[in-house]
Amino acid sequence: MNAEAPRTGAAGTSGADRFSINQETIKQWSLPELVAGCAAAGVQHVGLWRGPVQEYGPAAAARLVRDAGLTVSTLCRGGFLTAADPAARAEALADNRAAVDEAATLSTGVLVLVSGGLPPGDRDLAAARERVADALAELGPYAAERGVRLAIEPLHPMYASDRCVVSTLAQALDLAERFPVEQVGLVVDTYHLWWDDTAADGIARAGRAGRIASFQVADWVTPLPEGVLLGRGQLGDGSVDLRRFRELVDAAGYDGPIEAEIFNPSLWARDGKEVLAETVERYRAHVL
Amino acid sequence: MNAEAPRTGAAGTSGADRFSINQETIKQWSLPELVAGCAAAGVQHVGLWRGPVQEYGPAAAARLVRDAGLTVSTLCRGGFLTAADPAARAEALADNRAAVDEAATLSTGVLVLVSGGLPPGDRDLAAARERVADALAELGPYAAERGVRLAIEPLHPMYASDRCVVSTLAQALDLAERFPVEQVGLVVDTYHLWWDDTAADGIARAGRAGRIASFQVADWVTPLPEGVLLGRGQLGDGSVDLRRFRELVDAAGYDGPIEAEIFNPSLWARDGKEVLAETVERYRAHVL
Repeated sequence: MNAEAPRTGAAGTSGADRFSINQETIKQWSLPELVAGCAAAGVQHVGLWRGPVQEYGPAAAARLVRDAGLTVSTLCRGGFLTAADPAARAEALADNRAAVDEAATLSTGVLVLVSGGLPPGDRDLAAARERVADALAELGPYAAERGVRLAIEPLHPMYASDRCVVSTLAQALDLAERFPVEQVGLVVDTYHLWWDDTAADGIARAGRAGRIASFQVADWVTPLPEGVLLGRGQLGDGSVDLRRFRELVDAAGYDGPIEAEIFNPSLWARDGKEVLAETVERYRAHVL
Repeated sequence: MNAEAPRTGAAGTSGADRFSINQETIKQWSLPELVAGCAAAGVQHVGLWRGPVQEYGPAAAARLVRDAGLTVSTLCRGGFLTAADPAARAEALADNRAAVDEAATLSTGVLVLVSGGLPPGDRDLAAARERVADALAELGPYAAERGVRLAIEPLHPMYASDRCVVSTLAQALDLAERFPVEQVGLVVDTYHLWWDDTAADGIARAGRAGRIASFQVADWVTPLPEGVLLGRGQLGDGSVDLRRFRELVDAAGYDGPIEAEIFNPSLWARDGKEVLAETVERYRAHVL
């Protein structure tokens, strides 16, 4: 593995052992292919998505992962909690409870939340953020009772209108800190936060408050594609000082998995095994 | 014009009289067409771009605009000051001095600066921002001697790697305040700042410091196009609470032109006169 002495976290894992692959990075693989591929490559953690987990069956997916000796670093994702309409809101809350149940079934402690954007015609970001807080108040106890923490993920400001009204670590932390630490945490994702000169302070503050539930890595490359969803860069290909982020997150006391989550059709067009090997190698070269 | 009593600024202009059209919003028009179209529509201010001004000749452009009774709210744009290479840096400084000269010829007090992105392979945003500061130190006195203020424009974080390492009003203000107020100001542009919950405080702070040199308006619409440059929305079509921004900027003491700067091929495909009339009407409905 790593030529240097392993850095040991609370879970006794070295830096290399902290690597997790988010399922969406290699979405050409089925869940069984992903699990077999990780086991073969010595990857110990996976971040899963609800769609493929539901398709395979959450209990069966949990067995598959556990039998291969893998742990689930995160379940992606709950959220979309900004609807003002009562029926849409009730539906979103029910769906998020189901996501908590799935996370608990998979024995992951982290349900990633993408907060949701502005309802059509709405221009009030502050009110939408307040509706996210209201939803966290309803969902937090339900999640904590099941050993799952809701992890608010601040998304890049380019998603503020249509996906996530929580755009910065400071906003996510202000939101999280209104709730008990075992109910609500946050996700530090380099792709969303790299541009922000206040992110370093935010990571330190989040660490002190015990709020970092997940650390995800992807690089920033341009030009962005239409819709700006599927343009994430392979680690090392872009503008993000990934190692600095890892050091900041380490210094803040986070010692859990480091999850590579890269949405990019050019990775999906390739052999899954090759993509996994490349991502592990890039992780060692640019993140560790 | 406006049915309500006109709000009078220092220059004696009412709210409706503050409207400025940025040339790039109707780029299908030549400079003479733009000037004639504005005069016919009663629009009193234009924001110009260096390309068409150079093509027409700066002195001739200045005469054309002046003879039609128009003022130039801004010249767009200088900047791209982040090169680390000495030759590229010297070239950028020379080009910015030329831009200052053109602004002075056009009798506008505002040269908009887009700071520039990261050089290829570079991942150090903080160092790039510091190179912008170094350039401002060199250019500021040159500009002020010619009655021109350098206006730092914070661009949306989605441009941080390739166009502008200054992403927030707070960053722009921290940068501006290192220089005399007559040398360096900033641009408040709704398209770039709308998502930021600290923008309101930033506008108040910028107003107190006398740093607001320009106020530009465009709306935020999705999906963003490939490259994310030409996807700005017509006023009222998107997610931005434009009136709130205008009220914040007013409350901060800015009483200059309000410039509509919308880059969108769907506007360029239409009759220029129709686009100007629509933009004025949208300004009255959504900004005033």
